[in-house]
Amino acid sequence: MTNPDTIHGVLLSETFDLKTFYQLDLSGRCDDVRLLNPDEVSDPAAIRFAVCWQPGEQAFAPYPELEMAMSIGAGVDDLVTHDGLPPAVEICRVRDPYQAELMAGFVAHEVLRIERDFEEYAQAQVRAQWNPLPMRPPEQVKIAILGNGFMGRAIARAMIVLGFSVTLACRSEPDKQIDGAGYCWGEDAMLNAASDAAFLVNALPLTDQTRGVLNAELFAKLSAGATLIQIGRGEHLNEEDLVEALDKQQLSGASLDVFATEPLPEDHPFWSDNRIHITPHIASDTTPHIVSEQVVQSARELLAGKDLSLAIDREQGY
Amino acid sequence: MTNPDTIHGVLLSETFDLKTFYQLDLSGRCDDVRLLNPDEVSDPAAIRFAVCWQPGEQAFAPYPELEMAMSIGAGVDDLVTHDGLPPAVEICRVRDPYQAELMAGFVAHEVLRIERDFEEYAQAQVRAQWNPLPMRPPEQVKIAILGNGFMGRAIARAMIVLGFSVTLACRSEPDKQIDGAGYCWGEDAMLNAASDAAFLVNALPLTDQTRGVLNAELFAKLSAGATLIQIGRGEHLNEEDLVEALDKQQLSGASLDVFATEPLPEDHPFWSDNRIHITPHIASDTTPHIVSEQVVQSARELLAGKDLSLAIDREQGY
Repeated sequence: MTNPDTIHGVLLSETFDLKTFYQLDLSGRCDDVRLLNPDEVSDPAAIRFAVCWQPGEQAFAPYPELEMAMSIGAGVDDLVTHDGLPPAVEICRVRDPYQAELMAGFVAHEVLRIERDFEEYAQAQVRAQWNPLPMRPPEQVKIAILGNGFMGRAIARAMIVLGFSVTLACRSEPDKQIDGAGYCWGEDAMLNAASDAAFLVNALPLTDQTRGVLNAELFAKLSAGATLIQIGRGEHLNEEDLVEALDKQQLSGASLDVFATEPLPEDHPFWSDNRIHITPHIASDTTPHIVSEQVVQSARELLAGKDLSLAIDREQGY
Repeated sequence: MTNPDTIHGVLLSETFDLKTFYQLDLSGRCDDVRLLNPDEVSDPAAIRFAVCWQPGEQAFAPYPELEMAMSIGAGVDDLVTHDGLPPAVEICRVRDPYQAELMAGFVAHEVLRIERDFEEYAQAQVRAQWNPLPMRPPEQVKIAILGNGFMGRAIARAMIVLGFSVTLACRSEPDKQIDGAGYCWGEDAMLNAASDAAFLVNALPLTDQTRGVLNAELFAKLSAGATLIQIGRGEHLNEEDLVEALDKQQLSGASLDVFATEPLPEDHPFWSDNRIHITPHIASDTTPHIVSEQVVQSARELLAGKDLSLAIDREQGY
């Protein structure tokens, strides 16, 4: 017997204990929302939603009455492409302002590290050498950002405050534009945005349209010696094209935070390529209390029969 | 005989060829403003202003009719404290938006490098080790900025966009406040702003009141293991107090861009102290075309008998 005033959800992850990591043990905090691990579920038909991070292939199979699957991060490609998730199930994602700020911080650090020669100064210190290098005004440095979503916009705002010239590439003309940013949209948006850019930042969602977009054709548009900052998904990048662009010095370096296989295998050649900076998928993270709040909010919307405010468009894939 | 429609200035620097570095060869560009190196001056009494960077002790002596001395940077302490500059001579400085943005970029890089463990990740890459470290939301990280001038405000705006909690210390209640920033003013402003801060950023002008303010009393207010980012003037810092605070782990590190003696002498112990990051006074620079424009603008104001819009308050020292 199910209490009509309570909604039940299940936590589905192959890699994380979501209950512990994201403050999702709601017992004693909410009477109306119950979250269970799969082994705590006695009546699978009572489960109306799932909270997910890298759910297994068969993860959704036991739950015939699922109406919503929620990602604890901003990326939903794992859910959109999941063969076991029926098309009628709505997909939601967490929208965490801190996650966007963390991502903007990652990009700011990588751009400034390179643009301002901080590694050269660290080496000069070892030699006790005082050697100021010339610098250029940031407005002369073009940063192309692929993606005008929550992340892309946060990155753009930060880079504009730091004085850089920013151009965002997006699918269609944006409703609201950020003061001081340039925009490219339509079919050649990415190629046009990348033109003469010193830094190319990928903040796209992963969809069938964006898979493999970081490729030779795009790199060729950049200013010679540009840098790639890759914080989207590993599948956006054509790894062979990257190595070729580095070899030709079309690119002088790349900061890669995401990879087709994570963790990046120990024997992958990128680890020892000193033109490539590797970080272990830490450009950003969701904040546990925000995840917890937004899961409860979405569950309550479902319980009340309201529209889900954090739902994505499954057709568009984001 | 002096043409009343023309004003003459002299370039005074012991360390730079200002004419070459800052686009100050105005011949053919302006008829009304003439800028000469000292050896080109035939009539010293016709010189009404000087453009300066580290002028020598006797630099001003030959020019009895000097009305204005202009610094090609934002700092004017070299001029304010110069014994050879008569009290009636007005002091101006360049106010370069790019300089403030460059400085904000320096601070953003140093804060993020430490806060986001980028050096640990660089070391992990050498070992081909995938090891994500926990991160905290930037709003939990307090950044205290000493100085609410042109530089301090640019730094504050950048750090706020990146999500950090920012408190500015200033002498008196500010007329305009930056959205999202906290302020401390009055006698204990610096001590109060520093309280529990994870980062202490010094962007103060050097005056008799601010000399030596980076000292044990201030460091003791910070959160344990905080970081000093020193981009003011070398004379702000008590070096012994810094080393003691590092030894006691009150501070975990310091980024020093300015020093009492520059270049920092090769045998200075800071070079080999791995808790201290040294950069050679490159937190920012003025942009040649801005310097050139603002020198011409100030000279024309002087020629027209107008108030000098880039003048500082010699009493306050900034």
